[in-house]
Amino acid sequence: MNKLGLTKPDGRYMFLYSRREIPRELRAPSPDGTPVRADPHLRWHPLRGEWVAYASHRNNRTFLPPPEYNPLAPSRPGDFPTELPAGEYDAAVFENRFPSMAPGATAKPDVGVPSRPADGVCEVVVFTQDPKASLSGLELEHLELLIDVWADRYAEISARKNIQYIMPFENRGVEMGVTLHHPHGQIYAYPFVPPVPARELELQREHLQQHGRGLLEDMAAAEIAGGGRVVAVTESAAAFVPVCARYPYEVWVMPRRAAPSFAALDARERKDLARTLKTVLMKYDALWQRPFPYLMVFHQSPVNTREYPEAHLHAQIYPALRSPGRLKYLAGTELGAGMFANDCLPEEKAAELQAVKVNV
Amino acid sequence: MNKLGLTKPDGRYMFLYSRREIPRELRAPSPDGTPVRADPHLRWHPLRGEWVAYASHRNNRTFLPPPEYNPLAPSRPGDFPTELPAGEYDAAVFENRFPSMAPGATAKPDVGVPSRPADGVCEVVVFTQDPKASLSGLELEHLELLIDVWADRYAEISARKNIQYIMPFENRGVEMGVTLHHPHGQIYAYPFVPPVPARELELQREHLQQHGRGLLEDMAAAEIAGGGRVVAVTESAAAFVPVCARYPYEVWVMPRRAAPSFAALDARERKDLARTLKTVLMKYDALWQRPFPYLMVFHQSPVNTREYPEAHLHAQIYPALRSPGRLKYLAGTELGAGMFANDCLPEEKAAELQAVKVNV
Repeated sequence: MNKLGLTKPDGRYMFLYSRREIPRELRAPSPDGTPVRADPHLRWHPLRGEWVAYASHRNNRTFLPPPEYNPLAPSRPGDFPTELPAGEYDAAVFENRFPSMAPGATAKPDVGVPSRPADGVCEVVVFTQDPKASLSGLELEHLELLIDVWADRYAEISARKNIQYIMPFENRGVEMGVTLHHPHGQIYAYPFVPPVPARELELQREHLQQHGRGLLEDMAAAEIAGGGRVVAVTESAAAFVPVCARYPYEVWVMPRRAAPSFAALDARERKDLARTLKTVLMKYDALWQRPFPYLMVFHQSPVNTREYPEAHLHAQIYPALRSPGRLKYLAGTELGAGMFANDCLPEEKAAELQAVKVNV
Repeated sequence: MNKLGLTKPDGRYMFLYSRREIPRELRAPSPDGTPVRADPHLRWHPLRGEWVAYASHRNNRTFLPPPEYNPLAPSRPGDFPTELPAGEYDAAVFENRFPSMAPGATAKPDVGVPSRPADGVCEVVVFTQDPKASLSGLELEHLELLIDVWADRYAEISARKNIQYIMPFENRGVEMGVTLHHPHGQIYAYPFVPPVPARELELQREHLQQHGRGLLEDMAAAEIAGGGRVVAVTESAAAFVPVCARYPYEVWVMPRRAAPSFAALDARERKDLARTLKTVLMKYDALWQRPFPYLMVFHQSPVNTREYPEAHLHAQIYPALRSPGRLKYLAGTELGAGMFANDCLPEEKAAELQAVKVNV
């Protein structure tokens, strides 16, 4: 993997990644050259026991792009500058110009509950230069490169000593609120371990202490042995509809051993994970012959805090649809009580995905 | 309040509520007379430590209603039967025909994780006979009746000894996934304390132990004293944008003292709560001169378990929109990490709601 570090005119950092050599003369553009003034803060929610981020500058976007403007496409001479340079590379990472968390944040308003600067990191990961591509349609080697990119980001962001949790994710489709259709994901790096992974790790730790094996290792092994909910499996990676799926078509993808992060995967495991993930995403898109909207999040080990022998890198994919035209809404019981109600049995949805044949 | 208990042809119970006398000859109709065969179950989610409900019968609705059919309107002679009788009453409650949880559930499938019957209760609460009305537009006395209805349901459902948590809620608007536009809410009664209220109660208990006062009592008092985020206040009730709002325009409504449930409110407090709630809902609808979509959940004390001196009845209202045409999506950081990112400061949204004048 080749990597080139750049700085945008407004001060944000950018990295280009490629399987081939990257021309050293590339320069990082920005749609807006004025320095970023993000100063988001966190407030403590005393009734839920969690931090909430406030980034009111995000609503003050004065930039008015021309119609059809794609800020994630490579810049073209004479056109309005985008976030990406023209040139030879496969993927790009840069700081979000309108971040929910920002490294230099200092705000700590006196509001009656504890508050602190939201000094995390929000990165955009552009998966490819091709605006019409999708993660599922990328060549296997390109997806392998993206796994290297996620591993690189994990290692590099970990060097910021205030960061405790690094979460890559992809929101895909208008159903998920996505307005930029160029294939891309994001990485949020938090100055604390957020409640969802914190809770998962707590339960993983209990399982490890009781059984001497990882919870997700055991779940993956049981799914592979049973077979009924498996969606894809390779020598070192597995994908399945979990027995406790909260969303119709929910799938988890993971290395079969408890590798704590992307950075901990060896070359063979990265290849297997790429192939397994690509199989799932291709099945999704082939299921109804349309791009399948979803949220995909990667959970991995916290950093710069205690040891987490219980951590196990995995993706959880939450599809937005129940059927081709019907959304899965989160409403009263999901948001108000935290009990998900699923109209579909995981076994039925797994069988549907199993029946879809794809050529990875 | 007058109340009449009925049984539908398919075996479901129904209650009519009214400020006036209810004709005793009313009979409960059903769109479908065949007995309900719901047998939902719960599976344990070992990675999140929570129950997930599976009700696959919900997808097998064979009933094909005529166009424009409103199952929540009173039945009319000669037309297809609805869920409601024609006659004199203000509100109706009946068992959901397609429940996520059902009193007679017995299913306990062997799936490799703990499972149990979803033997809860799912009720539909029809707020009024008028299909064009809304909670905000009901007369104050009608809203007071609904508070009596919620109190009655709390008391009556508590008598089922397996039930531990009773949560009334309203999903309002197509943005929340609502397909029936007749004004109505639901009540979910769970055979366990679900994770969201369980977490809230844990933090409320800590606060009570440390300070000798309730967390929400203290928050309401601080908001009333500060004034900057108050939306409505009466002698015994308060509504405000919480300092830690996760949604733009989020509002909490509650009695100012720590009444544990609707059933615990005296007549004066019910009137005040109705007026305070109506003020908030009218402001929402007046803000953009359009029906304001939201999820409103009521949290109250668990039942049939230990004592909860920390419990404090309150509504949390989560609006679906950030601005007239823009949805607040829950995506990567909210669903994947549990950290909400809010582009709006609570103080700004409260000021907007304060500026809306309504005549309650």
